[in-house]
Amino acid sequence: MRKFYEELLGHFKEACILEEVNMFLYWDRDVTMPKKGGKQKAEQVALISKLEHERRIQPRIGELLKIIQTHKEYENLSDLEKRNIFLIQRQYHKLVKVPADFVGEFNKQGVIANEAWEKAKDQSDFSLFQSELEKMVELNKKYVNYLNPEMDPFDVLLDFYEPGMNQEKFERLVNPLKEVIEPLIKKCLESNYQPNKSILTRKVPLEIQKKLNFDILNVIGYDLERGRLDETVHPFTTGNYDDVRITTKYFEENFLSAIMSTMHEAGHGEYEHYVGKNGRYQPVGMWCSDGVHEASSRFYENIIGRSAAFWKYYYPKFKELTGDIFVDVPLEDFVAVINRAEPSAIRVDADELTYDFHIILRFELERDLLNDRIEVKDLPEIWNEKMKTLLGYEVKNDAEGVLQDIHWSDGLMGSFIAYTLGNIYGTQIFSKLKEDITDWEKETEEGNLQKVLNWFRVNVFEKGNIMDSFDLVRDITGKEVSSEYLADYLTTKYSRLYKLK
Amino acid sequence: MRKFYEELLGHFKEACILEEVNMFLYWDRDVTMPKKGGKQKAEQVALISKLEHERRIQPRIGELLKIIQTHKEYENLSDLEKRNIFLIQRQYHKLVKVPADFVGEFNKQGVIANEAWEKAKDQSDFSLFQSELEKMVELNKKYVNYLNPEMDPFDVLLDFYEPGMNQEKFERLVNPLKEVIEPLIKKCLESNYQPNKSILTRKVPLEIQKKLNFDILNVIGYDLERGRLDETVHPFTTGNYDDVRITTKYFEENFLSAIMSTMHEAGHGEYEHYVGKNGRYQPVGMWCSDGVHEASSRFYENIIGRSAAFWKYYYPKFKELTGDIFVDVPLEDFVAVINRAEPSAIRVDADELTYDFHIILRFELERDLLNDRIEVKDLPEIWNEKMKTLLGYEVKNDAEGVLQDIHWSDGLMGSFIAYTLGNIYGTQIFSKLKEDITDWEKETEEGNLQKVLNWFRVNVFEKGNIMDSFDLVRDITGKEVSSEYLADYLTTKYSRLYKLK
Repeated sequence: MRKFYEELLGHFKEACILEEVNMFLYWDRDVTMPKKGGKQKAEQVALISKLEHERRIQPRIGELLKIIQTHKEYENLSDLEKRNIFLIQRQYHKLVKVPADFVGEFNKQGVIANEAWEKAKDQSDFSLFQSELEKMVELNKKYVNYLNPEMDPFDVLLDFYEPGMNQEKFERLVNPLKEVIEPLIKKCLESNYQPNKSILTRKVPLEIQKKLNFDILNVIGYDLERGRLDETVHPFTTGNYDDVRITTKYFEENFLSAIMSTMHEAGHGEYEHYVGKNGRYQPVGMWCSDGVHEASSRFYENIIGRSAAFWKYYYPKFKELTGDIFVDVPLEDFVAVINRAEPSAIRVDADELTYDFHIILRFELERDLLNDRIEVKDLPEIWNEKMKTLLGYEVKNDAEGVLQDIHWSDGLMGSFIAYTLGNIYGTQIFSKLKEDITDWEKETEEGNLQKVLNWFRVNVFEKGNIMDSFDLVRDITGKEVSSEYLADYLTTKYSRLYKLK
Repeated sequence: MRKFYEELLGHFKEACILEEVNMFLYWDRDVTMPKKGGKQKAEQVALISKLEHERRIQPRIGELLKIIQTHKEYENLSDLEKRNIFLIQRQYHKLVKVPADFVGEFNKQGVIANEAWEKAKDQSDFSLFQSELEKMVELNKKYVNYLNPEMDPFDVLLDFYEPGMNQEKFERLVNPLKEVIEPLIKKCLESNYQPNKSILTRKVPLEIQKKLNFDILNVIGYDLERGRLDETVHPFTTGNYDDVRITTKYFEENFLSAIMSTMHEAGHGEYEHYVGKNGRYQPVGMWCSDGVHEASSRFYENIIGRSAAFWKYYYPKFKELTGDIFVDVPLEDFVAVINRAEPSAIRVDADELTYDFHIILRFELERDLLNDRIEVKDLPEIWNEKMKTLLGYEVKNDAEGVLQDIHWSDGLMGSFIAYTLGNIYGTQIFSKLKEDITDWEKETEEGNLQKVLNWFRVNVFEKGNIMDSFDLVRDITGKEVSSEYLADYLTTKYSRLYKLK
């Protein structure tokens, strides 16, 4: 049976390497490709994607799974090996249900919808995107119908991105969260203490920002012999194991943007650096779920990257690198302003406190679209209404409203919740970290950042995909997944920052 | 039948795209890959190479070729379509004879031999490379035996890299050439006029050199929206059509090196930019042979790049960009020194006049190795002897002698002659160009470089692979391939430069 098992893993490995090559072709497209190379790159991507898909659904996988699982020696396999088989089977059974033609149609419509979205966003006019989005929603319904015609369609999508997830579970997490955050936002806004926002728009020359971002990677121990940092329009992370490339974006009058992007992507990147502990190119040696990936990036970006402890250590270095730009800004003011809470239009620019409301909004819209409770044409209106109810924010136009995200045009529906799950998992895991390293704050302030990061590495990254996300968080923390840790984290943090009673 | 033809071309296209992806993975390895990404890159390359090879030898290709060629409508195909079929068949029949295991073994030994060569070269000690090279020679013999056990083994290799080529043909070209070059070198060395070599070692800051090289690309019209220029240890060109990337290498005390590398690779690059005229990803829309590729690169590097006409136009700009570094150097002295003739150890640094002797030497050694007339262990001695006889140069050590080239360690034998063929084809084509554009020199001096380059583009690049190299050169020039054009070119050029009687 060993022979069949090895063969199965061999096929999986080939598919992974093709995926790796493909991700890398995308990286090239965004970082190094000459301007007119796009058409050829698209042909390369299309072919490699096709070959990867063929490998994942080849009938031999089905045969091997059957042989192995009915084999008399099956029970001799280790738990990790059984998990590998289970994960390959789960993926195979999902993918094999979807006709190849449909995958092609879906991807093609993605390209068309994406173009329409870009144009619509540029002109801030949803009507230019509406009919393409309608097609994309229909294709998602069709997709869901291939995967599981019995289940609620939105639950199928949630489970697709976060195995085990469904609406009820998610609502059970976020409903109590809302109850905590809503009054907290209000209190912050009404507080006598308000951070000095003008600090954030001080001009920091790009050359200095670049140095700063590379220095931060160095401080958090991101190994640039196993990765790169480049600049792109939309920051992202690509690659795995010994070659993980992250990107950021610099704005002269918004230095914080690049720093936070870099730390966020470094979190994703470090996950990929260490995720192969249980076996590279094996299912158990890959990331667990989108939610856990976001937990990692948000741990780096928010929990560490916006913490008072980190900046107590790093602020002197920051000041040194930025010359006299922040010479008059005390540490306390700096920490306050990089954590300022303020209802705003754009999700990616939102602060930790208001962020999850942006996700809840999208979750509700996707849920209602997939279940025919609302129509695409009414999205802008409903969006703006919800922004008012949830965040008290008056949306000015479609560009800063319903058109702000690329996801739907790419055909992604049901994937947004990963960000809030990331916040939930991350803070719950952090609560355990604080139990294990009681002096984490002192250590971090003194620059022993690796103590905290190592803990996260060993307890999260290196676990790879040995179990699904809810089980993993329970396994790490000893508690069921709950949003109370996030609620507590935000309450403590913002009460302190805004000097609330 | 159309249907079968399209299917055949479809398979070919997939193989080409895989090859394109693979070339690009190599580019990444040398230009952008983080230091420790090599192992993963090797896995990617191995898989993509395997998939490409599988595609090229899949039995369906053989079936399709048979169906098409015996089809009653075969005669209705155009000449280009028939050429496509012929070229696919020729490749298929070569590749299909070689067992996949052998290809793997060959490539693996290439990696091992390469490492041994690097070490041997570093320590200038051939004995560290000898046994690996012996294996590589044996593998080449085995390879040849798969391809065609009836033919002289070295002829099989020559034909592999340059279809239609054999030893007799090559010797018929280079023997008369030797007779002309040998006395010419002697005359140059004995001339009263000698170029001022110290000009070449003047320090030119790297920043200035970079600007200079990008400017030269601009002047020759190399479209950087369809390509890139980067720096690598060994300059090379990779890619095709709308994405062709070239590299160069900068030395502070040898500014000429980067300029000539850039122009050389730009010649390769422009070939790939325009080669698809008759059909991208079709056999006729690909390069004709290694020799024609070198004809292109050497046309850009030597015939144009070292010409008095080009520098009459460009020298003022060159002086402007280099500040006061060359302010005291008259144009004539500059042109003389970038063309200086001098027997020297290293092929890649050789001037136009002595260069072909380096190739003749390698040709003779490869020929005698493949035919068991000499043994690997005696190579250093024979090498040094030949350098003395052919060029009057005393080799000081193995590093500057038998160990200087990477080719043999990679398993390449029989490929060196492409450089001399390139010189021969290039000057013969140039003789026709001068007939068609009688005022080429004046136009070039005045900066209308595109007149010459466009001619080359239309007459060489865009022809792609519509016929084999000898036929192509005959077709372009109306004359059989002969080395007399190269002999005349060198005689005229060097008589003028060295003010010979």
